[in-house]
Amino acid sequence: MANPTAAMLVIGDEILSGRTRDANMHYLAGELTKHGIDMNEVRIVSDDAAAIEAAVKALSAGYDHVFTSGGIGPTHDDITADCIAAAFGVHLGVRDDARAILQAHYDKTGLELNETRLRMARIPDGADLIDNPVSSAPGFTLKNVHVMAGVPSVFQGMVASVLPGITGGTPLLSQSLRVMRGEGDIAPTLSAVADDFTDLSVGCYPFQKDGAYGANIVVRGTEGARVDAAMVRLAKELQT
Amino acid sequence: MANPTAAMLVIGDEILSGRTRDANMHYLAGELTKHGIDMNEVRIVSDDAAAIEAAVKALSAGYDHVFTSGGIGPTHDDITADCIAAAFGVHLGVRDDARAILQAHYDKTGLELNETRLRMARIPDGADLIDNPVSSAPGFTLKNVHVMAGVPSVFQGMVASVLPGITGGTPLLSQSLRVMRGEGDIAPTLSAVADDFTDLSVGCYPFQKDGAYGANIVVRGTEGARVDAAMVRLAKELQT
Repeated sequence: MANPTAAMLVIGDEILSGRTRDANMHYLAGELTKHGIDMNEVRIVSDDAAAIEAAVKALSAGYDHVFTSGGIGPTHDDITADCIAAAFGVHLGVRDDARAILQAHYDKTGLELNETRLRMARIPDGADLIDNPVSSAPGFTLKNVHVMAGVPSVFQGMVASVLPGITGGTPLLSQSLRVMRGEGDIAPTLSAVADDFTDLSVGCYPFQKDGAYGANIVVRGTEGARVDAAMVRLAKELQT
Repeated sequence: MANPTAAMLVIGDEILSGRTRDANMHYLAGELTKHGIDMNEVRIVSDDAAAIEAAVKALSAGYDHVFTSGGIGPTHDDITADCIAAAFGVHLGVRDDARAILQAHYDKTGLELNETRLRMARIPDGADLIDNPVSSAPGFTLKNVHVMAGVPSVFQGMVASVLPGITGGTPLLSQSLRVMRGEGDIAPTLSAVADDFTDLSVGCYPFQKDGAYGANIVVRGTEGARVDAAMVRLAKELQT
């Protein structure tokens, strides 16, 4: 049976302008691979309601799961919850369970749960809360969309809360072989191996080091014995 | 006049599986911002012909410029040129000008321009070549799509070749203010400033450090005096 599919939607002007380098995509990609979920697409859009809504609709319809990152804080540019609610045509409002979580958090820290902070308790109707072990303000899951914060530590905490509840598939195994030869040299061998092992994916990632050409060859698949067999053959044919 | 818009398409299974962390997106974002081009969207798709074609069509229709990264090497999984040609319905074949560039390169290095390497001379009809100052094999521009390599040093060299030929707009200026206060505290002030400076964008990027909450506030705009004015007001109201 094929693995569940997933897409990620990163929301944030700061990434598109080059000010911040996104860290969440790389993290989520690794976690999903370990969990047996295939990430097939990532989109990064700006803090623009029409762009967020359109992307949520397209990805939610195209994949089993969608993971979003960013735009659920208390400030005026945090519009993700509004856009998710709009994309699914459901009402968004302060919900008692989310308010109680925030109230408990601010009681403990001695800060006031003011009107601005209360924005973070706005949850679309029908959504399940996602536990935030770092800073309390919850994320949420609506249909197949998991809505999480952009701050990397909080995002990672939320991913840890969400993933155990999602049924994964067979984790993808990978092995790699580093060869100090140019791609053009090794391509015929790679092509032949890819043809003979159609259940595996054979990737080639070239690099240059100290003026010499090399490549990392990565074989991926769900059956360890098959990955091993392909690697043995590659090593034999390329490292002579 | 509004700045030209752009999107980026990153092609590569290795990024979606979490094996490699993409570096090209962050680099391009910074270069485009300096050049006065607004990057509005990024998509990352796997080495899948249908996914690449669909993304190229959507992004080419939606933005002034599209920049792609990855999938133009000599190996069997390098299918980007094929997909771009298919997306625009044009023929793809080995072109004499591209072949001459490769031939000169391999003559110099003493390697053979074999059939596999010749794959890199396949250019869609009607495309202009993009100079590759690092490893010779050219990228190309077809319509509004600039097709470049995934290896970061080569990608950066190609961006440097392409950008001077593209008319930019007004570079986006930004200033930032670091405040050791929680988002919930400062949100009302940010919101008021955003309302009073509708020509600027006011972003808030929270962080946690040693258990304390802080935020970087970033003001962006094309008029330096306006950015200055907003920053003076934010500093006065938030750093008391």
